[in-house]
Amino acid sequence: MKTDKTKVKRVPKRGHYDAETIYKILDNDFICQVGFVYNDYPVVIPTIYGRKGEYIYFHGASVSRMLVTMEKGVNISINVTQTDGIVLARSAFHHSLNYHSVTVFGQAELVTDTNERMEALKIISDQIIPIRWEEARLPNTKELKATKVLKLKITEASAKIRIGPPKDEKEDYDLDIWAGVIPIEKRYGQPIADPDLKEGIPVAESVLKLIKDN
Amino acid sequence: MKTDKTKVKRVPKRGHYDAETIYKILDNDFICQVGFVYNDYPVVIPTIYGRKGEYIYFHGASVSRMLVTMEKGVNISINVTQTDGIVLARSAFHHSLNYHSVTVFGQAELVTDTNERMEALKIISDQIIPIRWEEARLPNTKELKATKVLKLKITEASAKIRIGPPKDEKEDYDLDIWAGVIPIEKRYGQPIADPDLKEGIPVAESVLKLIKDN
Repeated sequence: MKTDKTKVKRVPKRGHYDAETIYKILDNDFICQVGFVYNDYPVVIPTIYGRKGEYIYFHGASVSRMLVTMEKGVNISINVTQTDGIVLARSAFHHSLNYHSVTVFGQAELVTDTNERMEALKIISDQIIPIRWEEARLPNTKELKATKVLKLKITEASAKIRIGPPKDEKEDYDLDIWAGVIPIEKRYGQPIADPDLKEGIPVAESVLKLIKDN
Repeated sequence: MKTDKTKVKRVPKRGHYDAETIYKILDNDFICQVGFVYNDYPVVIPTIYGRKGEYIYFHGASVSRMLVTMEKGVNISINVTQTDGIVLARSAFHHSLNYHSVTVFGQAELVTDTNERMEALKIISDQIIPIRWEEARLPNTKELKATKVLKLKITEASAKIRIGPPKDEKEDYDLDIWAGVIPIEKRYGQPIADPDLKEGIPVAESVLKLIKDN
């Protein structure tokens, strides 16, 4: 998937182009930033996604400006970034971040097939919280009509990864300055029930599992 | 700051346009996604920033494609998004996310003044981890030459926020389905010393403070 467009420009050794690495990073998240051009301005919109096979699926309101624009087949790119740690070097110059990031370029297409639409919605739901699709009241005809589903084939993509300790200039290793990494951890807190929750309803299995897998 | 471009299109009641709200969200993070157009493609690049007053500062390698492009004064936008929780409704359709998000539109400009450049680098450093600038070995002439600093004035900006419990269709509140919010928490883990750390160096004050403020 290494093309002129996806080739990692800065610090090339951090670039990865194999599907396994790219899919793993995508599967570890559910929010991406979609970039598209609207009235001569690049617009960056955070949105939920789900991945299955070679496709990334998006959904939203049928009238969404982002989806209506993407539906036209314009050039888009998406970026997913997970920040793993602050890298403290001895020198200010060599401070850095540890991260996993993926960028995909392409054109999205509208999903029109009824079954594929429903499957895509399940893929997106599963990406955020598995099992929930089996628990929730599924979309009715009116809701499906109000929802647009698009997909983007992962053909031009790259990952950029930084891991590990800081790198300093040789002569700086002798300075009396602490250096290392502060990990950034993301986890789920204790679920907060809807104040309007009907009495006697236990916390859902999907929620218990998500928290247990923290 | 409400203009045609920044007006929140989807779910307008989630839109905010006052500087206080926008600055607070910006100050709560240090990574943004920059969108710019390169060879007819919208490109989205995650990057570190710092805010002070009406300006957002960026830095990077002088040869960075992103900075070299931004330096030309082209239209850019930046987005900062913090995901606060997964909102589980009774219906799949009304599932949502709680989040705080800011978008800024404009054109960046190169910072050329020596003092302002150094101050900007400190602002960015302070945004990530206060006190560190006072501890680290500061940039020398060679390193400053290899670094580009840009700033973006916050004139056209908007925030989009969702907080609180799910909203379901009236008739769904009677369903036997758990609904509520799963908080997403971000925190710093225990610092990992550089394996090449000189012996006898205690963990830096900046690190201890950052972790204590968790």
